[in-house]
Amino acid sequence: MKITVMKFGGTSVADPEKIQRAAERAIAERRKGYAVVVVVSAPGEMTDELIALAERVTETPDDRELDQLVTTGEQVGISLFAMACIARGAPAVSLTGPQAGIDAVGGAGRAQVSRIRTRNILRHLKAGRIVAVAGFQGLAPNGDTATLGRGGSDLTAVALASALKTGRCEIFSDVKGVYTADPRIVYEARKLPRISFEEMLELAGAGAQVMQARSMEVAERFKVKIHVRSAFHPQAGTWIVAQEDLMLEKAFVSSLALDKSEVRLTVVGVPDQPGVAATVLGALAEDGIPVDMIIQSAPSHLGVNDMSFMTPKGFALKAKKALEAVARKLRAERVDLNDQVAKVSAVGTGFRHSPKIAATMFSALAAHKINIHMISASDLRVSCVVDLGSGEAALRALHKAYGLGKGRR
Amino acid sequence: MKITVMKFGGTSVADPEKIQRAAERAIAERRKGYAVVVVVSAPGEMTDELIALAERVTETPDDRELDQLVTTGEQVGISLFAMACIARGAPAVSLTGPQAGIDAVGGAGRAQVSRIRTRNILRHLKAGRIVAVAGFQGLAPNGDTATLGRGGSDLTAVALASALKTGRCEIFSDVKGVYTADPRIVYEARKLPRISFEEMLELAGAGAQVMQARSMEVAERFKVKIHVRSAFHPQAGTWIVAQEDLMLEKAFVSSLALDKSEVRLTVVGVPDQPGVAATVLGALAEDGIPVDMIIQSAPSHLGVNDMSFMTPKGFALKAKKALEAVARKLRAERVDLNDQVAKVSAVGTGFRHSPKIAATMFSALAAHKINIHMISASDLRVSCVVDLGSGEAALRALHKAYGLGKGRR
Repeated sequence: MKITVMKFGGTSVADPEKIQRAAERAIAERRKGYAVVVVVSAPGEMTDELIALAERVTETPDDRELDQLVTTGEQVGISLFAMACIARGAPAVSLTGPQAGIDAVGGAGRAQVSRIRTRNILRHLKAGRIVAVAGFQGLAPNGDTATLGRGGSDLTAVALASALKTGRCEIFSDVKGVYTADPRIVYEARKLPRISFEEMLELAGAGAQVMQARSMEVAERFKVKIHVRSAFHPQAGTWIVAQEDLMLEKAFVSSLALDKSEVRLTVVGVPDQPGVAATVLGALAEDGIPVDMIIQSAPSHLGVNDMSFMTPKGFALKAKKALEAVARKLRAERVDLNDQVAKVSAVGTGFRHSPKIAATMFSALAAHKINIHMISASDLRVSCVVDLGSGEAALRALHKAYGLGKGRR
Repeated sequence: MKITVMKFGGTSVADPEKIQRAAERAIAERRKGYAVVVVVSAPGEMTDELIALAERVTETPDDRELDQLVTTGEQVGISLFAMACIARGAPAVSLTGPQAGIDAVGGAGRAQVSRIRTRNILRHLKAGRIVAVAGFQGLAPNGDTATLGRGGSDLTAVALASALKTGRCEIFSDVKGVYTADPRIVYEARKLPRISFEEMLELAGAGAQVMQARSMEVAERFKVKIHVRSAFHPQAGTWIVAQEDLMLEKAFVSSLALDKSEVRLTVVGVPDQPGVAATVLGALAEDGIPVDMIIQSAPSHLGVNDMSFMTPKGFALKAKKALEAVARKLRAERVDLNDQVAKVSAVGTGFRHSPKIAATMFSALAAHKINIHMISASDLRVSCVVDLGSGEAALRALHKAYGLGKGRR
């Protein structure tokens, strides 16, 4: 039995017409001779609507009960999907996470898939049925249905592909694939036929939201190739594969990302003493505040320096508060917050051995008179923080400078 | 452990504010020292909305998938209810039908409760938690969550009261209890403190919609007293109890009902031969058409007679079509449909031995010049079909004639 695992995201099943189109794609795959497992998300904005409903009942909903509530979203998605298949003459059955044999541990709202007992799914596949599985949920040891904390429905699809040994997984969403840059900003942007997991993880860190990071980590570990493609167009999308499958010869830039969702925080006048960086970062970690691009300036002749970070807008005030407490303790001068910044990144491979890639970025930005506030670089990514208003111009300038518009891979 | 089983219908949990009020009633019961089990329906119109969504996907949704879909309504209800309790400091947990140990047999959309394994509920009650159980659903032998075909959430409540041996069950809804007649029509109508199961079943047959018939049958069989009361007012409602608990001395009328939801069908000129009634009724039964007040006129000198029935408006056209086929076969003259009729009924006890009750009805209607089209009578009910426009006047006239406005029980 050849099995295909497909996953349809919330926007791909947002209304009855889209559910019907998604069902037709599953049926087409079945006609090609595959046994088909389809992971379905909650339709459209249903999860957010359910959370809003809970918040009208209480400002602090109980975690376990919130899971009991929001898991109904995916249950609605799978049942409608199975109905659409059956109405088109294709036998189908919907299974919740627990019914599908997906076991999870770790508690409400942050469960992790611990095991998949594939017996029930295989029984239905052998009977010729399309199996629609609810994403984002599993059976907790105490009998609860818990939501998966990180990775969500993508993770369910990858975990099923791994358990069913399909070697690959098709992720359908409202994006056509991974591009060299956001095509809404860069006219010449190209869809990449292939990209590595490592690059995708860096892109996610750089603000590109194609797939959840956790599910890519799992896909890489269990050697599941991922095909990211559009639910509304028949064309192939982008395959996310292991680095070694790309057979690279030299360093190159795959894709650019622009992130306008972060703010810059700076602790000004920090005494230059051992342990200071750990104290500052520790305070942020304690409050669960994600940071990127930690930059510490060289100490001034007064023996103080500045520490800067980027953090998502949603965490800005919480982070500022935490830093101000630390600043008082360390006798630092003050904490500045700048929300008029954008982060532009180039993601690729082998950057460490090719300083030219970073140099190209700096010179391209300079040629366009775009001021650079912060820089960070790793083997897979170079990022610059610029003025918010210069972000899109920076993206276009870099796309041209790296020659991404011409076909290469 | 003293246990109370409460049930809140859809209108009682229609929005977050109503859910909070319902939660407060459960918490108040818990403060009195009871362990509290609350059966919760789907909020407001959610079940109908889910069915409408399914019908946008396909006109003929698969039964099993429709159950997978609509059971989410009650799951939303219980989780919001439990959240509201927890937010008020009362420990609570929500359980779906399968999680609550409610086993059901009989297939999707028409399952019946076969067994309740109370272990999980009792475990949570012993831990001091209010247990919110999803109504209208149970675990099928194949692992599906199936909806209960007849009786719905009321039946879940009654079955739990029976399994937990509470002896009683509180049903909260948007009605304050059982009245001597609809108070919107009869100004002097009184709320009855007590009524028997038999009378309630007759009232349901006469068009009064207080509780589902199936759940009253089960309550009677398992000796569960039911307290029907308002979710929005603190006053006691009406207790539905066994006939013997009422300790009756003589025949009396408890309550009147007016039903404007039915039509009259008449097969005219049916040959007076043995087996004709069975043929006619058999055809209706085969199509699942409910009938009430089957009346056959005495044969005319031509050896033919007329057969009349009352059937709900929703079945009128289907019934007419079935009867026309039968009429052709039997060489009857024609089928008439009259939708300008109303059924007025008196329900009580011991009518068989008290012809005065029926006589009072006929003379009261005559005194108000209300023409009677059809009559049927049993030990528990007398019904007359009158012109639709005379229905409310008939109800008021009978309420006065039977002296129901003055307190008696």
